[in-house]
Amino acid sequence: MLRFCTLEQAQDKLMDRTPLLDIELVDLLTASGRVLADDIFAGANLPPADQSAVDGFALGYGGREIGNQYRLTGSLRLDEVASFSLQAGEAVRVMTGGTLPAGSQAVIAHERNLLEGNLITLQEKISPGMNTKQAGEDFQRGERLLSRGQILDPGAIALLSAFGICQVAVHRRPRVAILSLGANAVPCQTDPLPGQVRDSNSPMLAALAQKDGAEIVFVRQITTCRQETLLPLLSQLLEQVDLIIATGGTYAGDQVEALQLMTQAGVEPLYWNVAIQPGNHQGAGIREECMVISLSGNPAACAVGYHLFATPVLLAMVGKTPYRPRVTARCINPFAKKANSRRFVRSHATWTPKGWQVETLPGQKPSMLRSLLDCNALIDIPAGSPPLTVGTEVSILLLDNSYVGLNAEEPSRCLIRMGPS
Amino acid sequence: MLRFCTLEQAQDKLMDRTPLLDIELVDLLTASGRVLADDIFAGANLPPADQSAVDGFALGYGGREIGNQYRLTGSLRLDEVASFSLQAGEAVRVMTGGTLPAGSQAVIAHERNLLEGNLITLQEKISPGMNTKQAGEDFQRGERLLSRGQILDPGAIALLSAFGICQVAVHRRPRVAILSLGANAVPCQTDPLPGQVRDSNSPMLAALAQKDGAEIVFVRQITTCRQETLLPLLSQLLEQVDLIIATGGTYAGDQVEALQLMTQAGVEPLYWNVAIQPGNHQGAGIREECMVISLSGNPAACAVGYHLFATPVLLAMVGKTPYRPRVTARCINPFAKKANSRRFVRSHATWTPKGWQVETLPGQKPSMLRSLLDCNALIDIPAGSPPLTVGTEVSILLLDNSYVGLNAEEPSRCLIRMGPS
Repeated sequence: MLRFCTLEQAQDKLMDRTPLLDIELVDLLTASGRVLADDIFAGANLPPADQSAVDGFALGYGGREIGNQYRLTGSLRLDEVASFSLQAGEAVRVMTGGTLPAGSQAVIAHERNLLEGNLITLQEKISPGMNTKQAGEDFQRGERLLSRGQILDPGAIALLSAFGICQVAVHRRPRVAILSLGANAVPCQTDPLPGQVRDSNSPMLAALAQKDGAEIVFVRQITTCRQETLLPLLSQLLEQVDLIIATGGTYAGDQVEALQLMTQAGVEPLYWNVAIQPGNHQGAGIREECMVISLSGNPAACAVGYHLFATPVLLAMVGKTPYRPRVTARCINPFAKKANSRRFVRSHATWTPKGWQVETLPGQKPSMLRSLLDCNALIDIPAGSPPLTVGTEVSILLLDNSYVGLNAEEPSRCLIRMGPS
Repeated sequence: MLRFCTLEQAQDKLMDRTPLLDIELVDLLTASGRVLADDIFAGANLPPADQSAVDGFALGYGGREIGNQYRLTGSLRLDEVASFSLQAGEAVRVMTGGTLPAGSQAVIAHERNLLEGNLITLQEKISPGMNTKQAGEDFQRGERLLSRGQILDPGAIALLSAFGICQVAVHRRPRVAILSLGANAVPCQTDPLPGQVRDSNSPMLAALAQKDGAEIVFVRQITTCRQETLLPLLSQLLEQVDLIIATGGTYAGDQVEALQLMTQAGVEPLYWNVAIQPGNHQGAGIREECMVISLSGNPAACAVGYHLFATPVLLAMVGKTPYRPRVTARCINPFAKKANSRRFVRSHATWTPKGWQVETLPGQKPSMLRSLLDCNALIDIPAGSPPLTVGTEVSILLLDNSYVGLNAEEPSRCLIRMGPS
């Protein structure tokens, strides 16, 4: 059980067992960013009928040149559907969005043409279909609008509303509990005694999981009455949430508290100890539908472990692609440490017109918080690699979207560059 | 008033008048993504004292070679601060995170050295400071931790917690009302009669504004009793929210309903009509601290107008950089239309190892929704430009982070590339 596994072995074990969460109906106004659980098809044409795109005159068949004339036979209200067909040489007044009568070849804007009495004289050349919207020109009845597994963006929300779909089936958001097991960690509001530190991992994990779409239902830092309190609490949470992220208690001289606790609560361990730095002492387990990810209490190891293990679980639970994008980047500063085991270095990546560059952040000791500030990427350094020098090409995992800076290429406004260069 | 202005003139007029929202205290667990309103300084060293990084023996001054010996004089509990200094040749048992006694030169791990009786014999070479954490090595007392205007990321949240800052001063989230003024738009749940369309703009605008950090406090689609209902509603909203985004009613043959309504409600117009397509008929105004942005009712024009005008206002209100990043990209499909005025083409941008590429989305008529699906960029085409051909270099605005695809470069896992190439 305590044999070291590789990162990919651990991730595969997690992915093999991560359940896809069930489906709930949500209102369109709260559906943004959620993952669609069903394919959606167009129940009707959009637009539903041939319509006018301007306020003007619908023309029957007839001449299309300047000077050609049409006889105005009437007027259609916006909500009126004509019971007649336009005959050759006839015209009828229509409004933007109004349904065109059968026999319309085009619509002309009233302000651009000449109406004297009931006689319209064209002041512009006509092309068939001009100023009209054809039935189904945007979407055809029966067409697939959106696909299962698609993330609902604002455009998808607009489309659902246009088709009268006010509620939509999406995967439920993962319910997450965060449990700090560190024996010497105290909550933020407590003054630490000598030997104690304030728990910085729980709020960080809550912020990270929120960004990954989780609903944080429980955050607790446990220091007293450990045995009596922890086991019933863990058992209760295992019934109530989809993922428990624990931090701390993953390493001790003679016993692994987090693992013991999980086992006592009936959690089946999936892996324990992973051959990476920081955070080689960590693991995961499952009981029924609830996953448990047990991360190191060292802040840097906790953050790295979150990105490598908790993010994939949270994304897979709602049917999203679990892993972060990976690109090749060039180091802009050195990192002096040899990598005895595979190492994830907290860093800041930036896209530039010359390619991706990555800066190793200061404070890489696992106990330090400094390397977590502005951290938007992890450099993935294979075991046995020499120190990184300026210019080394490395593989990095992109953690968020802050890497394309406003001034990456050019001022964010005004500058316009066109044509093949 | 109805003279056309340029995009930049309109944006400048907005930015000149956009208020910075006031400050509120929020709990750390809900502070992620918010903008810090004050500089934060370290109130203490972190760690607060020299500490042991392992369970082991703190050594006083003495030999550092294998075989050198130290006399174990006692043991410190984790919460104990020694009242004595370690003398040369002395050692004391310490725990991970425990405060080191004065006179400690290093800590050795107990499992890696030999203890017989009270005599420790070194089994490894010692370097000064090994296995210790120096007071302030992560952050020094008085150091600036975070700066006013900084967006709180999970690392910043962790840092605040470590320093006991459980509540933090941030700019209030913008309160936004969305008002659909389109005379022939009906709500999603209503079956449209001939001449009517379902309002797709309001839910889209709500989703967009949520992504930009707004709190949506009101979404309403108005069709009946317009004069009697709209003016009191608008007047009330002007008192209650920071930004009203209206859609529709920006163009009519003889009167501009949205502008009339704003003027009647005492809103000072800032600009009206902008020389861009789609959406040349649009505007904005302000009354006291409440901004009003009045967008076209055509879906594509509404979306483009949102990105160009509403996003900068929402970001500036909380002190964020208002404009989206702009990069140069190469067209992968043609766009046949000549640009008589400056045109914003809905498109999908992707980063590839060969640079940015951009695909013009289908359905570019302003009345169509299709071009809003998967839209993550706007191509900014100057007035007078010829049609775009494959390979044309264009300036694009990036709207979100979906442009670095998982498979942009390489599989998202496993592949590791190292060393200068």
